[in-house]
Amino acid sequence: MTQAYSIFTYKEGLKLESGSSLQSIDVAYETFGTLNKDKSNAILICHALTGSSHVAKSKENPKVGWWNDIVGAGKAIDTNHYFVICSNILGSCKGTTGPTHKNPETNESYGLRFPIITIGDMVDLQKILVDHLEISKLYAVIGPSMGGMQALQWAIKYPDAISKCIVLASSASLSAQALAFGTIGRNAIISDKHFQEGRYTATEKPSKGLGIARMIGHLTYLSKESITQKFGRKLQEKESYGYNLDQEFQVESYLKHQGDKFVDQFDANTYLYLSKALSYFDLEKEYGSLKNAFKPIQARLLFISISSDWLYSTDQSKEMLRSCMNLNKDVSFCEVQSDYGHDAFLIEYEKFGSIIKPFLDSHHE
Amino acid sequence: MTQAYSIFTYKEGLKLESGSSLQSIDVAYETFGTLNKDKSNAILICHALTGSSHVAKSKENPKVGWWNDIVGAGKAIDTNHYFVICSNILGSCKGTTGPTHKNPETNESYGLRFPIITIGDMVDLQKILVDHLEISKLYAVIGPSMGGMQALQWAIKYPDAISKCIVLASSASLSAQALAFGTIGRNAIISDKHFQEGRYTATEKPSKGLGIARMIGHLTYLSKESITQKFGRKLQEKESYGYNLDQEFQVESYLKHQGDKFVDQFDANTYLYLSKALSYFDLEKEYGSLKNAFKPIQARLLFISISSDWLYSTDQSKEMLRSCMNLNKDVSFCEVQSDYGHDAFLIEYEKFGSIIKPFLDSHHE
Repeated sequence: MTQAYSIFTYKEGLKLESGSSLQSIDVAYETFGTLNKDKSNAILICHALTGSSHVAKSKENPKVGWWNDIVGAGKAIDTNHYFVICSNILGSCKGTTGPTHKNPETNESYGLRFPIITIGDMVDLQKILVDHLEISKLYAVIGPSMGGMQALQWAIKYPDAISKCIVLASSASLSAQALAFGTIGRNAIISDKHFQEGRYTATEKPSKGLGIARMIGHLTYLSKESITQKFGRKLQEKESYGYNLDQEFQVESYLKHQGDKFVDQFDANTYLYLSKALSYFDLEKEYGSLKNAFKPIQARLLFISISSDWLYSTDQSKEMLRSCMNLNKDVSFCEVQSDYGHDAFLIEYEKFGSIIKPFLDSHHE
Repeated sequence: MTQAYSIFTYKEGLKLESGSSLQSIDVAYETFGTLNKDKSNAILICHALTGSSHVAKSKENPKVGWWNDIVGAGKAIDTNHYFVICSNILGSCKGTTGPTHKNPETNESYGLRFPIITIGDMVDLQKILVDHLEISKLYAVIGPSMGGMQALQWAIKYPDAISKCIVLASSASLSAQALAFGTIGRNAIISDKHFQEGRYTATEKPSKGLGIARMIGHLTYLSKESITQKFGRKLQEKESYGYNLDQEFQVESYLKHQGDKFVDQFDANTYLYLSKALSYFDLEKEYGSLKNAFKPIQARLLFISISSDWLYSTDQSKEMLRSCMNLNKDVSFCEVQSDYGHDAFLIEYEKFGSIIKPFLDSHHE
């Protein structure tokens, strides 16, 4: 796998929300485009649960990025104009320090000895990276899904360090239903015989449990409509039932494939930590109320939801919108009409692009 | 556990839809109320995926039944007036022959050597039981969820053997999304280290996998609203996060408890078979179209859906309603307004009772 990202190693110690701290942290990041002279064109893009710093193709890494249709020269987030930064989040397994990394103090992999991390911790580390890049104010912070939580946290925690904030298909906390799907996935991982309390090896790892967690996750990213349209009740390569316990429906083999593919690309302990960080995120709990949470925000805000997204619903975006409007914040909201469910942010790039681009490109001080 | 049901053993051989056959079959059933002289007051109640013949309290078994608030003396399905029959479905583990039973030919438990069974096979066996009870025409067949599929299949397969048919929170086939949740549950069972290709023992059984399948199932039976109202994001017995990977939210321990409780009451192989039977049910596929499927129906039909049920949606009931109306069938439909999701049929007994009772008690020939 091409891993052409830069590494910035932060050695000054990061105090975490849990009270623990990490002494030495690698941050994997990539940049796209050119930082202008007055350093006023930097955009930080925050990735979702299983993403990476590779948001778009680059000379260093020509592999298609996770938001390749949105980020690039001439695209909605135009790298001819903006300097885009994307870093792998704290606790992940795509270059930044997380459970798969070695603890420099013991020279052993962290595994479950890694401290619990939060969205706030991820954002603190991103701020350290942005400081390291000597950018005092980001033009924008943008994130979909869990990335949207990071973008929100940025606007709240570092209000004078960002001018615009785009929160896509995200929320101020997971719904109880989303919490529940998350916990089932974590249970599946922990129940795998190869999990071994997190001390699994590269050859014997909890692939089945992680695969099931991914299948559950993936299913919640799709809308009922999109699964029906894509697969319906179609069988694989045949017309009639085999009358056995095999996976005969296309939707079954599709999901199984998603699970199987994922276990080669992601680490089980990491999934536990990031899923837990998602569960913990709760601005209302952290600040007493959404209104309190949003009070410090100075950035222009844009919330975008997806009509068929049942994991991060339009209602949740509207709740945030209402709080911001009550506070007289400069806030916009748009619901993208799409049948693709939560995954639409990876698919409907024209619809998202047509909202993101004018919001980014407009200047009214 | 009290198991006060009657057993009828059918030894004439049942030909299954798959082409296989079963030579000797035990049918566990219970009856409530008294069969009248002209045998015109018999109602068959068909249970859902994990149900049993114990639909209501009886002298023989005073334990609360799964539909205790609907079935009984003076209740919506009034056993002072009707003779209620409820049998455990073919392939289940609550008394009727299924994977946990011994194959009489080999004297070994069937396990995964049990043949694949379908909703149609279950109904054929119910018809054999009804014939054995010397009832030529049922006054009604009623079923919720998978029981609704059986009720529908009855009306289609044995049109002159039933007068009324009530299909509750059910559909003519699972949606692609419901298929997908089913397959993830089956994968969780098969992935359990104790599954041993279905040859697990009583002391080492795939409890973790079955527990996860149940957690997934249970979550799909609840609406987003009901989980939010019941649990929201409340923590267990504390106010602040523990910053560990434990299950800290109430919804997590609730679901885990549902899973743990279930594994003492149900068998993993059985779950695979019944879940597969649910996946296979597809009237459109079986008869070419819903219209063709419904053509032979003579019974008065009543479809009842639940407003917040996302597993068996109101749209699916309406689709069946439209087909029946196009065929000029005697059909009624009602959507119960409830926030409880699919599970509402076990909770909102007054709402369901107030629809079921007048439909059953009315006489217009």
